[in-house]
Amino acid sequence: MNNTETVNLHRKYKGKIEVTSKVPVITEEDLSLVYTPGVAEICKEIATNPSAADTLTSKGNMVAIVTDGTAVLGLGDIGPKAALPVMEGKSILFKNFAGIDAFPLCLDTKSTEEIISIVKALAPTFSGINLEDISSPRCFEIEKRLKAELDIPVFHDDQHGTAIVVLAALINALKLVKKTKKQSRIVINGAGAAGLAIADLLLNAGFTDVVLVSLEGIVKKGEPWLNKMQESMAEKTNPNQVSGKLSDAITGADVFIGVSGPAALSKEEIHMMTPEPIIFAMANPIPEIYPEEAKDAGAVVVGTGRSDYPNQINNLLAFPGIFRGALNMNVRDITVDMKIAASEGIAAIVSEDQLSSDYVIPRALNESVAMAVADAVEQAVKEKTENLVHS
Amino acid sequence: MNNTETVNLHRKYKGKIEVTSKVPVITEEDLSLVYTPGVAEICKEIATNPSAADTLTSKGNMVAIVTDGTAVLGLGDIGPKAALPVMEGKSILFKNFAGIDAFPLCLDTKSTEEIISIVKALAPTFSGINLEDISSPRCFEIEKRLKAELDIPVFHDDQHGTAIVVLAALINALKLVKKTKKQSRIVINGAGAAGLAIADLLLNAGFTDVVLVSLEGIVKKGEPWLNKMQESMAEKTNPNQVSGKLSDAITGADVFIGVSGPAALSKEEIHMMTPEPIIFAMANPIPEIYPEEAKDAGAVVVGTGRSDYPNQINNLLAFPGIFRGALNMNVRDITVDMKIAASEGIAAIVSEDQLSSDYVIPRALNESVAMAVADAVEQAVKEKTENLVHS
Repeated sequence: MNNTETVNLHRKYKGKIEVTSKVPVITEEDLSLVYTPGVAEICKEIATNPSAADTLTSKGNMVAIVTDGTAVLGLGDIGPKAALPVMEGKSILFKNFAGIDAFPLCLDTKSTEEIISIVKALAPTFSGINLEDISSPRCFEIEKRLKAELDIPVFHDDQHGTAIVVLAALINALKLVKKTKKQSRIVINGAGAAGLAIADLLLNAGFTDVVLVSLEGIVKKGEPWLNKMQESMAEKTNPNQVSGKLSDAITGADVFIGVSGPAALSKEEIHMMTPEPIIFAMANPIPEIYPEEAKDAGAVVVGTGRSDYPNQINNLLAFPGIFRGALNMNVRDITVDMKIAASEGIAAIVSEDQLSSDYVIPRALNESVAMAVADAVEQAVKEKTENLVHS
Repeated sequence: MNNTETVNLHRKYKGKIEVTSKVPVITEEDLSLVYTPGVAEICKEIATNPSAADTLTSKGNMVAIVTDGTAVLGLGDIGPKAALPVMEGKSILFKNFAGIDAFPLCLDTKSTEEIISIVKALAPTFSGINLEDISSPRCFEIEKRLKAELDIPVFHDDQHGTAIVVLAALINALKLVKKTKKQSRIVINGAGAAGLAIADLLLNAGFTDVVLVSLEGIVKKGEPWLNKMQESMAEKTNPNQVSGKLSDAITGADVFIGVSGPAALSKEEIHMMTPEPIIFAMANPIPEIYPEEAKDAGAVVVGTGRSDYPNQINNLLAFPGIFRGALNMNVRDITVDMKIAASEGIAAIVSEDQLSSDYVIPRALNESVAMAVADAVEQAVKEKTENLVHS
């Protein structure tokens, strides 16, 4: 891959997605079925029974990828137009891996209220909303409000997709070092959208000792610099009330999860961890510490965000299957149970005999992952429904 | 076509459109080109030079079909979800006839201001906006404001698409009866969005005697019931200041254009017209007068909105080619010149020796029309540009 090659490819195809017809329109008879006058019958059916839109239109398989272009890759606030290539890329991954039609909508506004009202107004065309690359803290309010106000699933991938894949990798890495969730102290470096979502999912999945570290220091009750989300997470994390900075948190930790920046973790800090430390250094393209160095410092399992190292923590392992399962079950929300089931589904792809320090997570392009995740998600929904029925 | 057949077709395919990939994603190398990390290069290019989005993303070929579902077919205000089947139908026609990617957006709001601000916010993803089935008079304000505030073409098809195809049919019908534009008195029955747009285009195309008739009566300066748009049109139409109702306007008229309702025109009224009258009775599915009756009363050319009669006045003849031409020329507006050129392009498909009272307009599914319209539109843009350069 070089820059010329990627520019040439995008120029050759003029972008990456197209909107195509699933039905033939050759004769006037065809036209009268898909358009006027026949289509009026379909309109009337849906006007009478709105849920018929799920089966008689493309809505049932359609997801909106919504961004305002404020937090794109490592590029930051590059605006909606410049964000479009990423959203198109995401769209083709949705289609290739899960058969989902996903349309990019790059919004020319940064107003939280305006984004919320736009997405609400757009909802009739879609059965799911994938929020993407919206900067923190606006992303929290936008997701929370949309989840409450819409009857279709809303999923901020930068938060929950990342959290799901991290949990999947962690489940397998812990098997390798024979540690349990309750024995493990987890340090998450980075207390933004991804870090907070990871902490939340790990706690929900049974981890008990999670410590978040931001640029200001360790997230701890009463720190004056905490934002609202961090404040709420301070109540549930850091059970030993450690204060200070990363080097204070890392002492005696079993797992380091980096969603921060280049070179944020040193070999010396790894030396301060318990034996057989696990390092997920996900800053991209330059990780918190390179795998060679981390291993040199004693790390047993090292994951990064990069495809050129083993154990790539890639959201692609989660979002297509999560949405596939959610759409198949026609749920109105993607719940914590569904997310944990997705993580377990991803982890289970790596069988016990395949599991090794260089293979705790499936390859990003492994085509069986999305369907396994969808199955796991569907199963979680079914179990929930059965529990509700039997309780 | 019967109702079961159309329902079965929509259920079988689960709607009519899908969002598909134009590029291959098989290897990790592919993934690194279309998604991270390679895509960052494309983002940076567009952030520096926003117009690069036209060639490096799908934006350059992407049109939004925007509705609020308030004026759908003959069904009226059925809401955004029930409007989706029509918009999907339109999307596949855009693709099949002009290779345009068109995505339906059915908005869950009827607020003029909200629709305007939503479409403005959505603009970064699109190179054209097709407004559809938005009720009058809100459609006028929405189109006017969006045309002024966006730098991509905005086109309300119910108005301008209809007007373009009517003008095309009229150009050929007048050839047949050997009348000129200036000799012809035109009566337009229906003074809503379509009627007003037809009047406007005919005046711009060189017609001088156009009379609009609404349910309240003939549009004439000073009538107390005129709305804002009708008031403005009263200044330019009805040169003889005829007042009264349809039967008053129709006396001595050469052409009747109906965008009104079933059975609005009688044989007796046709008898009051000049010899060799032209009747376009476009109410759907029941026309203002059936072709058999109109011919019986002396009409030489009869057009309707129906595919089972000759001379179907179908918007499909206009919108794919209009947008194809506009996108190809990368214009920021669809001008009157482009619309008239489109009408002439459609009319020219019917050669002099083919022209007959049952063939004044090409068949809706004639595949050569869209490209001919696009060529005509492009030519109009080029001539305008040359004139600007030379003046």
